[in-house]
Amino acid sequence: MPPTVTVAVCQLAPVIGDVAGNVARAVEAVRAACDRGAGLVVLPELVTTGYAFADRDELRPLAEPVSGPSVSAFAEAAAALARRHGRPVVVVGGFAELDEDDVLRNSAFVVSADADGSPASRAVYRKAHLWDDENDLFVPGDQPPTAVETPLGRIGVVICYDLEFPEWVRTIALQGIDVLCAPTNWPVAPRPAGERPIEVTRAQASASIDRIFVATCDRVGTERGVEWVGGSAIIHPDGHPLALAQFTATGGEGGEQTLLAQCDLADARRKGTSAHNGVVSDRRPELYGAVVRPRT
Amino acid sequence: MPPTVTVAVCQLAPVIGDVAGNVARAVEAVRAACDRGAGLVVLPELVTTGYAFADRDELRPLAEPVSGPSVSAFAEAAAALARRHGRPVVVVGGFAELDEDDVLRNSAFVVSADADGSPASRAVYRKAHLWDDENDLFVPGDQPPTAVETPLGRIGVVICYDLEFPEWVRTIALQGIDVLCAPTNWPVAPRPAGERPIEVTRAQASASIDRIFVATCDRVGTERGVEWVGGSAIIHPDGHPLALAQFTATGGEGGEQTLLAQCDLADARRKGTSAHNGVVSDRRPELYGAVVRPRT
Repeated sequence: MPPTVTVAVCQLAPVIGDVAGNVARAVEAVRAACDRGAGLVVLPELVTTGYAFADRDELRPLAEPVSGPSVSAFAEAAAALARRHGRPVVVVGGFAELDEDDVLRNSAFVVSADADGSPASRAVYRKAHLWDDENDLFVPGDQPPTAVETPLGRIGVVICYDLEFPEWVRTIALQGIDVLCAPTNWPVAPRPAGERPIEVTRAQASASIDRIFVATCDRVGTERGVEWVGGSAIIHPDGHPLALAQFTATGGEGGEQTLLAQCDLADARRKGTSAHNGVVSDRRPELYGAVVRPRT
Repeated sequence: MPPTVTVAVCQLAPVIGDVAGNVARAVEAVRAACDRGAGLVVLPELVTTGYAFADRDELRPLAEPVSGPSVSAFAEAAAALARRHGRPVVVVGGFAELDEDDVLRNSAFVVSADADGSPASRAVYRKAHLWDDENDLFVPGDQPPTAVETPLGRIGVVICYDLEFPEWVRTIALQGIDVLCAPTNWPVAPRPAGERPIEVTRAQASASIDRIFVATCDRVGTERGVEWVGGSAIIHPDGHPLALAQFTATGGEGGEQTLLAQCDLADARRKGTSAHNGVVSDRRPELYGAVVRPRT
């Protein structure tokens, strides 16, 4: 029987450049989420550094390898919380990575600990679709996303704008993941009154199309003129939110907050949708060739 | 300059087996929509026959080739309406097709007429992803969808469950379509209070991901125990509905109705989304190989 996992998304407002403070505040949010029962905790994109950097010179001193102090702090927190609560803890979040070739990446880490506090995994995912000025700061990832086995199920990670490419979500979903964790920094954009941010709508569609849980963790606040919408959500494989941040047309009203939802992973492992249908088995890959045709 | 097109979706309640009556009522709905200004009119899936057939023996006598009387009736109506109003008319709708090899297909036609009433196109699309008992009635299409040039822009057609495969929507969107027309028969399914049918959410996501207009035309009513949700919508390339049928948790409350929306096709031809980004140019087809890998 797959477990029921309490998933948390900690919507925060990182301070640009304040890595030590951001990590401390995020670790504290993870601790509070675990004290409320969370096992799998998702943090925003670039939660260690903030987002709106002027250039690489400003960003580079704040970037770290996945073995560096920031990710290690989350790994140590996961281990300590697992030991304290006697159950596994998994933490996912975004950070500015300096990779093995000194290249800057917009990345996310996965750290986990078994129930006895021993480290279970440390993995990194590098964002493959870069948004706007990120193109001046980072080099996009060049590898498909890879599922990560954790003590709380098989999870996938994509980052923010990656979610706008359903081929990408499908690539990781086909690896049989239970939960797709998506650290995001979604800027506020105009939308009609009463409408959810379209980013949330797309995440809902992704969950339902692949029959997976999707946990988006957005940031809030305003940074150098950029305001974020605060669109965090934990979405069931049926596409409907189990938990959804509050937001208004002007964005960010919900502020910092942690959402929690109980996710029965069995719901993500039933891919059948009728006596005749399944979201994986009904695919017709032999007809999808246009999707991989090189750009002209 | 691409035109602004008034798109209509005519949400109807076909009567199972009554082809002559269904065609007459649908032609009347098209006429009324054009009188209200519509140029491109979308009708539900299987609008000529109804849906919940017991078996092929019941369905077969009602199926027709694309050159048959039902599709011809829509072509003639398009021509007459184009002449009357002095502007092009395009009609898209679902029908049970008996193809050139006497095979039953769940298909959609596109018929159009130029402003002078002369026929401009007659095309057929065969649903490639079949839902539930359709597998006992129809043979799925085995060709990718093909854009249809009409006097009102380049359009694409998919049918109902096809929309749950974003690879499929991408395949037609990459052909540079302005409007994706989706005849549907969406059964009512449980959903949380206040939530839209997830089918509408997926259509919204598709519109925004590919920056195209999406016009879904659903049916209503109850037929042999199947109730439809009536989730018709005309969606802007930003993903938000320009027009949306009313529905409640029990579905079908909106009843028969025609929605109209002005669609500035230029909005579907601007694929750029920031100084650095475009929904087509940002794709990384070289990394999407898993999507076309044969099922194991």
